[in-house]
Amino acid sequence: MKSYRKELWFETKTRRAFINITPQVEAALRESGIKEGLLLCNAMHITASVFINDDESGLHHDFETWLEKLAPEKPYEQYRHNGFEDNADAHLKRTIMGREVVVAVTNGQLDLGPWEQIFYGEFDGKRRKRVLIKIIGD
Amino acid sequence: MKSYRKELWFETKTRRAFINITPQVEAALRESGIKEGLLLCNAMHITASVFINDDESGLHHDFETWLEKLAPEKPYEQYRHNGFEDNADAHLKRTIMGREVVVAVTNGQLDLGPWEQIFYGEFDGKRRKRVLIKIIGD
Amino acid sequence: MKSYRKELWFETKTRRAFINITPQVEAALRESGIKEGLLLCNAMHITASVFINDDESGLHHDFETWLEKLAPEKPYEQYRHNGFEDNADAHLKRTIMGREVVVAVTNGQLDLGPWEQIFYGEFDGKRRKRVLIKIIGD
Repeated sequence: MKSYRKELWFETKTRRAFINITPQVEAALRESGIKEGLLLCNAMHITASVFINDDESGLHHDFETWLEKLAPEKPYEQYRHNGFEDNADAHLKRTIMGREVVVAVTNGQLDLGPWEQIFYGEFDGKRRKRVLIKIIGD
Repeated sequence: MKSYRKELWFETKTRRAFINITPQVEAALRESGIKEGLLLCNAMHITASVFINDDESGLHHDFETWLEKLAPEKPYEQYRHNGFEDNADAHLKRTIMGREVVVAVTNGQLDLGPWEQIFYGEFDGKRRKRVLIKIIGD
Repeated sequence: MKSYRKELWFETKTRRAFINITPQVEAALRESGIKEGLLLCNAMHITASVFINDDESGLHHDFETWLEKLAPEKPYEQYRHNGFEDNADAHLKRTIMGREVVVAVTNGQLDLGPWEQIFYGEFDGKRRKRVLIKIIGD
């Protein structure tokens, strides 16, 4: 069994952002040389997400509006976590979007459906944060 | 290390549906011959879900009502994604329910708790869509 | 390829609870002897969750309040699942929090970010319930 590990680093200019990381994940898979297996891709921070959905700007706007409705950023004082922090909403938003994805590796490719794209979801940005890619297989 | 891949196809008659796919996943595991490992089962479409919960019709009705409250289908024009589409709500509902499950394989069986059943969750049906099963192990 | 399986058992005194299980998961990894691979940790019950977030009591209070807003426990009769049960809300809350996490294993350690901690989330407690740890790798 082979394994491969790679970190991706991000520092978004805005508090919230969605970044399509499919090309970087594909590059990591090529570097691994693994042809059959499973690929884990997870946020290493608890106010960020890795998720799979559509690369369509209207939908990303809908996600932003919807997450703000389900877990509003403000007023900050509604959350007990916000004593020294202001990012409680980011923990909740990331919970909705999920920490990680697991993707099948088949014939050396990400085995994704036709519209599946992998995204980094940032909910408390403007600082350096990481995503982990771990691949195991043969 | 062995690996096995199988697709399941669906075409629901209704826009939304929950289908218990545990028997099909068990069949794929038997076909694989894998005794110890991990099984990934994921929707290949971004308006559908694979999730684990109870096979109880009252609960499924509760899920439908609850998801409509959290991410209503209508009015369609509330979502920017719905320019040429009407399925923005399906992307959001699937986000709540999740894209995938990973299940342990032990002694050649799905290592599930007493009430765990695997479901395909359709939120934009009436067309052919796929689920991927990928199993790795020995 | 090696594999290792362990169950953790819980019986919370309250209906809802969050328990940091990172030390137990680390112990299972040490017992496995696996140095490189993937670790699955999942609730075996459909009214409980395994999730990763911050070990901060203010945030846990925020989760409790937020989940009660999104999927209130009462009135019980709002849910069809609650014919013989009163735990429909627990199925919904666990859906938000997630069933499982998959964690990379690197150099014999859980490959977690700086604040990532693994939690058992109980939403229908006061009875014995289980978490499954399954590790595969070399």
